[in-house]
Amino acid sequence: MGKGMIASLKEEIPTDKKIMITFCGGSVKKNGVYEQVKEALAGHQTIEFWGIEPNPAIETLRQAIELGKKENVDFLLAVGGGSVIDGTKLIAAGLKYEGDAWDLVLQGASYDCVPLGTVLTLPATGSEMNNGAVISRKETKEKYAFYSNYPVFSILDPEVTFSLPAHQVACGLADTFVHVMEQYLTKCGQSRIMDRWAEGILQTLIEIAPKIKENQMDYDLMADFMMSATMGLNGFIAMGVEQDWATHMIGHELTALHGITHGETLAMVLPGTMDVLREQKGDKIIQFGTRVMGINSGIRDARITEIIRKTEDFFRSLGLRTRLSEAGVTMETIDEIERRFNERNVHFGEDGLVDGATARKILLRVFE
Amino acid sequence: MGKGMIASLKEEIPTDKKIMITFCGGSVKKNGVYEQVKEALAGHQTIEFWGIEPNPAIETLRQAIELGKKENVDFLLAVGGGSVIDGTKLIAAGLKYEGDAWDLVLQGASYDCVPLGTVLTLPATGSEMNNGAVISRKETKEKYAFYSNYPVFSILDPEVTFSLPAHQVACGLADTFVHVMEQYLTKCGQSRIMDRWAEGILQTLIEIAPKIKENQMDYDLMADFMMSATMGLNGFIAMGVEQDWATHMIGHELTALHGITHGETLAMVLPGTMDVLREQKGDKIIQFGTRVMGINSGIRDARITEIIRKTEDFFRSLGLRTRLSEAGVTMETIDEIERRFNERNVHFGEDGLVDGATARKILLRVFE
Repeated sequence: MGKGMIASLKEEIPTDKKIMITFCGGSVKKNGVYEQVKEALAGHQTIEFWGIEPNPAIETLRQAIELGKKENVDFLLAVGGGSVIDGTKLIAAGLKYEGDAWDLVLQGASYDCVPLGTVLTLPATGSEMNNGAVISRKETKEKYAFYSNYPVFSILDPEVTFSLPAHQVACGLADTFVHVMEQYLTKCGQSRIMDRWAEGILQTLIEIAPKIKENQMDYDLMADFMMSATMGLNGFIAMGVEQDWATHMIGHELTALHGITHGETLAMVLPGTMDVLREQKGDKIIQFGTRVMGINSGIRDARITEIIRKTEDFFRSLGLRTRLSEAGVTMETIDEIERRFNERNVHFGEDGLVDGATARKILLRVFE
Repeated sequence: MGKGMIASLKEEIPTDKKIMITFCGGSVKKNGVYEQVKEALAGHQTIEFWGIEPNPAIETLRQAIELGKKENVDFLLAVGGGSVIDGTKLIAAGLKYEGDAWDLVLQGASYDCVPLGTVLTLPATGSEMNNGAVISRKETKEKYAFYSNYPVFSILDPEVTFSLPAHQVACGLADTFVHVMEQYLTKCGQSRIMDRWAEGILQTLIEIAPKIKENQMDYDLMADFMMSATMGLNGFIAMGVEQDWATHMIGHELTALHGITHGETLAMVLPGTMDVLREQKGDKIIQFGTRVMGINSGIRDARITEIIRKTEDFFRSLGLRTRLSEAGVTMETIDEIERRFNERNVHFGEDGLVDGATARKILLRVFE
């Protein structure tokens, strides 16, 4: 992590490797990242694969796998945000698999992979320092988690974030915030250190968000944002504590069905999850409110309501929509999500309480 | 980490390895750890080396290296606290070195080592998840840092701490506290996340210390203590920030010259370091006071004085001595430490300000 670190690529990858570099669109050509990468790898054999879209689709990744197999690629370098890195994790597994890579997504994991390095351009998902990915299938509007190997290295230069669109930064801040909440907002008393560290990231996000809105070119601010996103989902705040992830599971459906940016779906769903599960999560909501939001008094129920309202306010302060109807989501979508959850017989959340019926309640709570 | 995890040793070490298990004294035979280790490794080839003392001495470690070479040991398992683990790190390097292992200490590092696993019995040094060690030489009363490989695994069962002597627990709490301070109490504004995480460990220690005094058999409390000690010195709070370590360097001399337990030397020295460097470290002392100690008001200088007093109070609340004269340290010792620092021409601390003369000031400040 640091200024100019992309140049270190040349030492990170052995020169006898045939590298496929994966990208999203052309933004890396505008912000100088593409040139830095190509310059660093001038002495290496490289091919390029362009077009890994937000919510990386199996339809696209199959093409990359086909190309990589044809070219005998034995190292992957993902240059982009969480979508490019996630997609490249599936490519890494797909290159070692004979059949259709969607099989791997459905089986949920594959650890026989080509090694993968990353150059992160958008702080948000933590994919640069974890072994998870989320892969979509356009034709069926499905979106599932997939686990694979960790990147062998990741390069984080905060300067690459200076030119990001403000909406992407806002979604990245919301995504990071909710990643932390998924690992934190369960039960009290599991681990004081994990609680403090999660709260530390949340406090940081609340502190830096308005400052970033004022000046996205501030190196230290963007470094803190980048660090928050990586530390928010690399396992360092998840040691020995329960995790939730129901908000993400519901959010994924909103992305799959309506194409809403991932971070924004989380900003919509989280306040609903907190409200509907206020009884089960109440003690932790109070701890969060006290330590992170500075809400120290009031009778329990009113205090929880106030904490949820302040959480939604935070997302709105980022410039994000927090109600489904604002994003054109209809009651039919809620029906469909309930139907899907029932069909798959899911029970999400740390206590398995979020099934189709509870998901409906959560979505209705944040409908308008 | 967890209850009963020592049994997992059998899967952690390949059965074709010849293991030397290293211990301190007999306490592991009283608390059941020895039996658990032997039971887990019943199917392995093992030999034992006993007697790695607090502040592990090259004189002892040479014997272990000689035995290990004779027996063709190719795996080491340290069962104990930081001293046993530190000492075994030098054994691991010494087994691969032809000459006298003290050479390795003087050169400061060696990474050609036999693999090492650990079973931690005393939370304090973080040695179970870092690559450092401190090795002493009795004949010359010297004590130096040595760097080597990370343990390939470490097993942390909080139950093994239930029977520790209260003084060892107090020293472990102080050691952990000062480890964090060495990585935190430098300058403001380097990394919001690292600051929050360091503060999170300090807050935790201050919260659990009086509770542990009441009930050292509380699993959750001791798990939080164990986690604090490991996270306090495994690099997770040191990313991209300056470090100090002057307090440790002075403390090592007090141990070398007077045999005072490491954690207690730190409790003595830290308030002196804070006071003598109150100008350079003032902003961070204020941040520490505000966020960790709850000291939010007062004019700057009085506030810093109050924060230092409260820090010393915390160490005294653990039952530790905080003044040199209480431990029989004389003015001659201070002369000798100044002489040694001058002779070695040291400049410790994040800005290199702690030389012989400054060390004298620090020690005089906490003399009585």
